[in-house]
Amino acid sequence: MTSPYPMSPMMGQMMNQPLLISSIIEFAARHYGHVEIVSRRVEGDLHRYTYRDCHQRARRIAHALQGLGVKMGERVATLAWNGYRHMEIYYAVSGSGAVLHTINPRLHPDQIAYIANHAEDQYLFFDLTFLPLIEAVAAQCKTVKSFVLMADRDRMPAETKIPNLLCYEDLIASSSDDYDWALFDENSAASLCYTSGTTGNPKGALYSHRSTVLHSYGSAMPNALNVSAADTVLPVVPMFHVNAWGLPYSVLLSGAKMVFPGAALDGKSLYELFESEGVTFSAGVPTVWLGLVNYVLQNNLKFSTFRRTVIGGSACPPAMMDTLIDKLGVDVIHAWGMTEMSPLGTAGSLQAKHLALP
Amino acid sequence: MTSPYPMSPMMGQMMNQPLLISSIIEFAARHYGHVEIVSRRVEGDLHRYTYRDCHQRARRIAHALQGLGVKMGERVATLAWNGYRHMEIYYAVSGSGAVLHTINPRLHPDQIAYIANHAEDQYLFFDLTFLPLIEAVAAQCKTVKSFVLMADRDRMPAETKIPNLLCYEDLIASSSDDYDWALFDENSAASLCYTSGTTGNPKGALYSHRSTVLHSYGSAMPNALNVSAADTVLPVVPMFHVNAWGLPYSVLLSGAKMVFPGAALDGKSLYELFESEGVTFSAGVPTVWLGLVNYVLQNNLKFSTFRRTVIGGSACPPAMMDTLIDKLGVDVIHAWGMTEMSPLGTAGSLQAKHLALP
Repeated sequence: MTSPYPMSPMMGQMMNQPLLISSIIEFAARHYGHVEIVSRRVEGDLHRYTYRDCHQRARRIAHALQGLGVKMGERVATLAWNGYRHMEIYYAVSGSGAVLHTINPRLHPDQIAYIANHAEDQYLFFDLTFLPLIEAVAAQCKTVKSFVLMADRDRMPAETKIPNLLCYEDLIASSSDDYDWALFDENSAASLCYTSGTTGNPKGALYSHRSTVLHSYGSAMPNALNVSAADTVLPVVPMFHVNAWGLPYSVLLSGAKMVFPGAALDGKSLYELFESEGVTFSAGVPTVWLGLVNYVLQNNLKFSTFRRTVIGGSACPPAMMDTLIDKLGVDVIHAWGMTEMSPLGTAGSLQAKHLALP
Repeated sequence: MTSPYPMSPMMGQMMNQPLLISSIIEFAARHYGHVEIVSRRVEGDLHRYTYRDCHQRARRIAHALQGLGVKMGERVATLAWNGYRHMEIYYAVSGSGAVLHTINPRLHPDQIAYIANHAEDQYLFFDLTFLPLIEAVAAQCKTVKSFVLMADRDRMPAETKIPNLLCYEDLIASSSDDYDWALFDENSAASLCYTSGTTGNPKGALYSHRSTVLHSYGSAMPNALNVSAADTVLPVVPMFHVNAWGLPYSVLLSGAKMVFPGAALDGKSLYELFESEGVTFSAGVPTVWLGLVNYVLQNNLKFSTFRRTVIGGSACPPAMMDTLIDKLGVDVIHAWGMTEMSPLGTAGSLQAKHLALP
């Protein structure tokens, strides 16, 4: 890409490499390869593996996409919960130069079909939960060559009206992980999120590799989400909505342990996962915290490790903030942003003057 | 700059702006304009003003450089301690597109002259302390058009053999702050540090705006120096040595209060400044900590606010680390890097597994 800005007669001589999403997972696998990713699956069980495993399987999927003929810049869609397979697809699609298009399953089926057609999605990966939804919209999705069910072979439906249905674990098993991430210009498109908070049909925000990597740094900073390798992070905010506020990137960049809740977002399921996995930091919208906080209060429970959460999406009621801070010992970071901002715009934090000794 | 990497047929559509050093001080002045910079001056007193003031004076100096005929890519040198005027020059020189060349006054005068000639420095700014040094080397510095004494008019020497000696505060007073930072390619050279840790003559490492801004993000991250707006930072590591480990950039990016120790690096002076300004975080080499720790122990003192320090440059003796952690309640971040790395390479931090409940 030719710079629109003048160049100095004296250019810097530092090592330079494009800011690519693949470099985040390469970094995590190299420096935090043993760190766990724990996922509650829609199948019901807990799945656990490491960043090293995730990197290996992401490369297998990248290889599979190549075999399926996906070219640079083409869109590959997902309809999926927060889980390890979804994260593999995040890195496989963007890392190979294609564009990850995360679709929000909470939209009306007609809007889902509209979005898939508008984006000209070539493939669509989906969780078992969404089999009926895909059966309903498949015929309307004109550009999709195949649908991929993110499950083991034994979960594949015996009969389906979905044309060209593929099995995710078959793709993994039949693809080599001998894959080098592509090198390309950092301003290339990386992912695509449609926002419905507008008039008329949903509109797409198209992120670049550069914008995503810079957002990962910015959002992980101490003044913002403050994510470190000492954290265990559970993103409640969905990966189908503005890239889960960037956590699938910033958590790997920070080497924190990752815990994915899947589809079980009720208070009891979340609380059990927070406790069993030692979650220290989470992120979500007020409605989800309401269920969790009520469950904890009604059962006279407490959090053993949970210390910090970011609440956004809509305004956090002051009463909920007070309960979290005063009764449950959980600091609340109040944040604001928009899909068009990758999405974090601002996050509240204390300054030195607020902490000054009297 | 033309990218050496292929571009996708689909480019991202996010807002894009070059990563320039001027954007750091613009950000600090806009969002943390009231935050203080406190400097112990070589004149002996404490000087205090805000990021907003710093930004205004930096623009005046940028204007003055323009008036002096400094062109994009040309080198402007400093021989100075850690202080507010030095920081103004940091931003004025790089922000205007010229190249900041910080010279280490601890080198042999012949090496200082060699470096100034090799870099072809056009102007050289220096602290009052270094007046005798400049008088000794001025005649050897063939490319320097003027030397600028970083002091008020009443500190200017009545007589000097330095040709074309200018007064810093005169430049400030006679220059307008109506100056827009230049926009240029982010790979343009921003600053230049010669390292003497090599064979033969010192060799220069030439940083770009991009490398400096990315280093600021990376070094401020929670896993590294963990600088936030809740901190008060005292960089003992000198601004004449690999840009004080990037703190003149990362501290502003983080909105922390800044405290500059000037030339007074003895235990008593540092301790008094730590206490009077509420310093929470510092950075330096083991020899400086030795003086500070001995002073604190010998006088049965304790730190009221100092909680974290990064020690690098040479290996921190385990006994010093134990004393800081166990006796004085100061966490020690052990870090390593090189001039060629901007300079932070690695920093030690605990991971979730180290903190897991038994």
